[in-house]
Amino acid sequence: MTTAIQLDPQRSRTIRPEARLRSAVMGATGYAGQELVRILSSHPRVEAPVLLTRQEDKSDDARSPQTLRRLCWDTLKDEGVDLLFLATPHDVSRRLVPQAMELGLRVIDLSGAWRLRHAENRSVYEFEDESGESAKFMERAVYGLPELHRAEIETADLVANPGCYATSAILALAPLLRANCVDIEHGIISDSKSGVSGAGKALSERTHFMSVADNCSAYSLFNHRHVGEIAEQLAIHSTSLTFTPHLLPIPRGILSTIYVRLNRRLTASEVESCLRDSYAGEPWVRVLAAGNLPEIRSCLHTNYCDIGFGLADDGRRLVVVSCLDNLLKGAAGQAVQNMNVMYGWDEKEGLR
Amino acid sequence: MTTAIQLDPQRSRTIRPEARLRSAVMGATGYAGQELVRILSSHPRVEAPVLLTRQEDKSDDARSPQTLRRLCWDTLKDEGVDLLFLATPHDVSRRLVPQAMELGLRVIDLSGAWRLRHAENRSVYEFEDESGESAKFMERAVYGLPELHRAEIETADLVANPGCYATSAILALAPLLRANCVDIEHGIISDSKSGVSGAGKALSERTHFMSVADNCSAYSLFNHRHVGEIAEQLAIHSTSLTFTPHLLPIPRGILSTIYVRLNRRLTASEVESCLRDSYAGEPWVRVLAAGNLPEIRSCLHTNYCDIGFGLADDGRRLVVVSCLDNLLKGAAGQAVQNMNVMYGWDEKEGLR
Amino acid sequence: MTTAIQLDPQRSRTIRPEARLRSAVMGATGYAGQELVRILSSHPRVEAPVLLTRQEDKSDDARSPQTLRRLCWDTLKDEGVDLLFLATPHDVSRRLVPQAMELGLRVIDLSGAWRLRHAENRSVYEFEDESGESAKFMERAVYGLPELHRAEIETADLVANPGCYATSAILALAPLLRANCVDIEHGIISDSKSGVSGAGKALSERTHFMSVADNCSAYSLFNHRHVGEIAEQLAIHSTSLTFTPHLLPIPRGILSTIYVRLNRRLTASEVESCLRDSYAGEPWVRVLAAGNLPEIRSCLHTNYCDIGFGLADDGRRLVVVSCLDNLLKGAAGQAVQNMNVMYGWDEKEGLR
Amino acid sequence: MTTAIQLDPQRSRTIRPEARLRSAVMGATGYAGQELVRILSSHPRVEAPVLLTRQEDKSDDARSPQTLRRLCWDTLKDEGVDLLFLATPHDVSRRLVPQAMELGLRVIDLSGAWRLRHAENRSVYEFEDESGESAKFMERAVYGLPELHRAEIETADLVANPGCYATSAILALAPLLRANCVDIEHGIISDSKSGVSGAGKALSERTHFMSVADNCSAYSLFNHRHVGEIAEQLAIHSTSLTFTPHLLPIPRGILSTIYVRLNRRLTASEVESCLRDSYAGEPWVRVLAAGNLPEIRSCLHTNYCDIGFGLADDGRRLVVVSCLDNLLKGAAGQAVQNMNVMYGWDEKEGLR
Repeated sequence: MTTAIQLDPQRSRTIRPEARLRSAVMGATGYAGQELVRILSSHPRVEAPVLLTRQEDKSDDARSPQTLRRLCWDTLKDEGVDLLFLATPHDVSRRLVPQAMELGLRVIDLSGAWRLRHAENRSVYEFEDESGESAKFMERAVYGLPELHRAEIETADLVANPGCYATSAILALAPLLRANCVDIEHGIISDSKSGVSGAGKALSERTHFMSVADNCSAYSLFNHRHVGEIAEQLAIHSTSLTFTPHLLPIPRGILSTIYVRLNRRLTASEVESCLRDSYAGEPWVRVLAAGNLPEIRSCLHTNYCDIGFGLADDGRRLVVVSCLDNLLKGAAGQAVQNMNVMYGWDEKEGLR
Repeated sequence: MTTAIQLDPQRSRTIRPEARLRSAVMGATGYAGQELVRILSSHPRVEAPVLLTRQEDKSDDARSPQTLRRLCWDTLKDEGVDLLFLATPHDVSRRLVPQAMELGLRVIDLSGAWRLRHAENRSVYEFEDESGESAKFMERAVYGLPELHRAEIETADLVANPGCYATSAILALAPLLRANCVDIEHGIISDSKSGVSGAGKALSERTHFMSVADNCSAYSLFNHRHVGEIAEQLAIHSTSLTFTPHLLPIPRGILSTIYVRLNRRLTASEVESCLRDSYAGEPWVRVLAAGNLPEIRSCLHTNYCDIGFGLADDGRRLVVVSCLDNLLKGAAGQAVQNMNVMYGWDEKEGLR
Repeated sequence: MTTAIQLDPQRSRTIRPEARLRSAVMGATGYAGQELVRILSSHPRVEAPVLLTRQEDKSDDARSPQTLRRLCWDTLKDEGVDLLFLATPHDVSRRLVPQAMELGLRVIDLSGAWRLRHAENRSVYEFEDESGESAKFMERAVYGLPELHRAEIETADLVANPGCYATSAILALAPLLRANCVDIEHGIISDSKSGVSGAGKALSERTHFMSVADNCSAYSLFNHRHVGEIAEQLAIHSTSLTFTPHLLPIPRGILSTIYVRLNRRLTASEVESCLRDSYAGEPWVRVLAAGNLPEIRSCLHTNYCDIGFGLADDGRRLVVVSCLDNLLKGAAGQAVQNMNVMYGWDEKEGLR
Repeated sequence: MTTAIQLDPQRSRTIRPEARLRSAVMGATGYAGQELVRILSSHPRVEAPVLLTRQEDKSDDARSPQTLRRLCWDTLKDEGVDLLFLATPHDVSRRLVPQAMELGLRVIDLSGAWRLRHAENRSVYEFEDESGESAKFMERAVYGLPELHRAEIETADLVANPGCYATSAILALAPLLRANCVDIEHGIISDSKSGVSGAGKALSERTHFMSVADNCSAYSLFNHRHVGEIAEQLAIHSTSLTFTPHLLPIPRGILSTIYVRLNRRLTASEVESCLRDSYAGEPWVRVLAAGNLPEIRSCLHTNYCDIGFGLADDGRRLVVVSCLDNLLKGAAGQAVQNMNVMYGWDEKEGLR
């Protein structure tokens, strides 16, 4: 994705050990933005981030001591900001990223704006700037899943932070696909369940307490935006994946129940080894022993993605279950993990 | 299942129009039992049910005006009880049904004791009385899903009330299988989510509020008891069905997301017609228009099973979503619907 | 309140036993309105209600078979509608009630428009029509709490259905105040907790799932509209009552914890007798035995108000706890109970 | 409380700056114990704590890498453990504290065993060892609320960590009582609401999900153990306090709504000043501006106690609302804050 781009291999050493990184966050009032600011504020390697807004907004929380500042590129540069986090809607990210990068800022974008390499997958976003300029930046974007793209992230200028559902599905499936043991033709199903923060802060009937409480519902059958993202990262065709998101009556957390048909008979211990070997040494993925299944609670308020599975007696029908906190490993936590990778720090820094 | 059994075709007329049925309930303190007693108590065709217990139990709810009476077959008969509901554990139902039926009582059993015709499916229950006597009663049992077995239920003496998960899966799938449009070889998946009342009243760590709240978890992968039940009713092999139950942080309700591969390309309107035609005139199944999906809240405190679906553009990948209240259409409500069928009453009676 | 008004004492007999009442509901899409329509639709004495709206609204729920009709007084009269339920905002009720009553309709208004006799209490509503005409109708309004005003409700043309919080506080306190055993000068405190449906259907940040879940908050300290209502019904000055409402993370239900100082030392059994005697024969109030406290769950989906209490060893400090379902005894259920009273029917009719 | 005891004033300097404190935790499997271990494990001044148990227990969580070790005083001493946390039942704490202290360990006890100075208040615990030996240790106990007893805690050997409800009530009331503006004779009411973790991990019908969800209930009217604790700390008679705890359908968090009558007319800004001045410089108490009320969510997963209030127009009726996380400022967080005080560290250390 970024292989053609020449980047200074020493880039990740530009921050002197004793200095602290200066960063800025745009979109700090959304759920992911709030988590991001919270983490950055106590991260030992970074200074308190500059909080940016497009208008002279008022912070909506009287208890927040932090004030939002109107975005001004010149000021950012003068202040020595090196890294810009965008927790903005995808169309805003499309507009801001070229400006930021031309200024020499590194960017971690939490929206879907720069995640998709293939135009047909991007079509669900209806970007207005598909031609010309944007293509150039698209080529420089690295998909920010460290477990898959660590080396590229280290030197990237533009990291497209993955979607929450996508992270849960990709981490569960990538080891199996890499091991060539999945019958892709058969089709893969991800039945995913998410807490309400995934639906964002905007007021709507579907996020009213009365709509969510004591309830569960499926939505966006066969047309959720994360399908293309998962398919690209797994290098499968998007029609090989059936993805059904559901809304859970909880504030946060994702559980994905993923159904695959193996192309050869495996034992549970072989499946476990495949997963374990893939994530050996990974600081933020926990593979559970065969017979154990993850649950949302164990991941809440952590950056972990937990993965477990069950295998049918036939050795062919495999159910993989993955859990994460959609605001952490599914958004802000992963963004900070990416920052840690980009600057050569311990990936657990600030996230413990 | 009961075709070989000669039953008095006039049986369902034995209750004179002006008289009210006398019934008894054993197991009235469990969640399903409580709902059952509540419904029966205001059912216009039945008298307040006799509440039975095995020991001289104390009711555990001081506000309940109803007292439990120790089971005594002779007394039941003397009192003119005609119908016995068993909301007891399956091993208790195995023991009581023969005694009740020899006394001439009709029985609706809410446990799994008499639902399974095939011995290999029954093995998950580890019944101690598989040989001899029990087989005789097993043959007289009718699976109490009126939408599939109405005629048999009308004249049945022993109705095996379906499991809650099973009801949601069977009602969603039966029309499609009957229409021969499902690629069964491909495998069918039911990813089902249930509220906590489905786990029963017994104290356990997994039903502690702290284990359930803000959480979601999968359990019993590839070994849930309802698999055999669903498979038998759909006349498929149990290995053709992958069934994954999940625990939702809500008191009641089931949502099943069911994945099938069609064996020929269909349009959404063809799928809708298949479902609608199957349930035309059914009082307790609602088929939603294409593009609409059911949700748990709409079924809560009703006896409805709501069914909707989504079809991929390829016309082959179909997702059917069904919802119901596990204590009503999934247990007590269905038991009352069965009673209504058995006595020739309007199936909505007592359930509106 | 209505004593000076001459009403036809035979009014409640105008519906012949065999005929069914024709009623209309305006505001059927709100939470209380929906419950009201649900109850009326299966009430044995009334026909399916006419559902009215001010504009040519579309029902927002595709599953609802009922259509809303634009309000037209002439049509209502032609159709023989006798009773109009208003589940509308209070300013709308202010405007519609005079028109309806001049047409000869009886009205049950669920808003706060006609509950308050004293102008200083009404000031919180900022009615624009305080002078002249409205005063005339205000005089004909009866506060629709059958346990306090049954005889007046029987013959009333305009019933002001009580507020949800107010019902829970008044029913808990009225017996004690009537028995003159409360030290009113000391002050009465009602610490009340309500589910989210009490906040209505309008979208707002405070009813977003993320604001409510895992949370509890107090609001409207010393300025909630129900204070005047409670004070008037208990014939105390509104400064004698401190009322603090709280938002609970549940869809429905109210629990009020009420603190009074007794003006003489009482025993628990005396307090219990006071409450029990007051509500002897009341179909919808349950007084719990001393030592038992009500909880919200026991009242949900019922029209009951449950009352329990605890008394300090000093025999002076009394805590009364009352629970009800804010959409039933706190709104739609009470409205139907009032209708039953107005037409001389069993007060449990339609509410069992 | 500990004034008569001679302690080495240099005690809090015994840990050399570069060394890390060795501590042990007994009772690490309960809710408070788990939080405590989590905090200690990432506290920059302490080593990973030794986890102790009375029996050769198995940890009940397969994902926990930590193993429990059977308590052996000699080993603890050999290992250089200086501080012992007890998150054990109060009777266990009664037995262990004398042994630990005789060994020279400092102790922070999270139970109610050592919080109460007055024998009549202690009677609710029914301690078996009231005479003799225990009295000696009781005298050395310091009530571990840093906002009230910081100086004593610094040099204490035995810190009795406050109860969760008690912390919320005492912090809200202490400034007002100290300012002599409360009419104590009138009586003080604390209507407190708590999440389920406050009820502990033991299985019981009242903590079953079905008992708690969609519900709210009051309990322990006039006989909760925290009454004596609050009264002692506020130096009022326990009959001056009416304390009513309620169970909320949330995992954690406490909101106390506290009603006092002022003995002179105050303005809102005077009340605000009284609270603000009392907590100026306090790292873990936030006083909200007049007109703002705290809510549980804002305190969750933090060590903050937030305090707000409303004042009636009469300037006499005051409602103070305080919120905290019962497992942090109400238990484990406060224990760590106490540790920070005892060892002379920044009180925010490990708790940010």
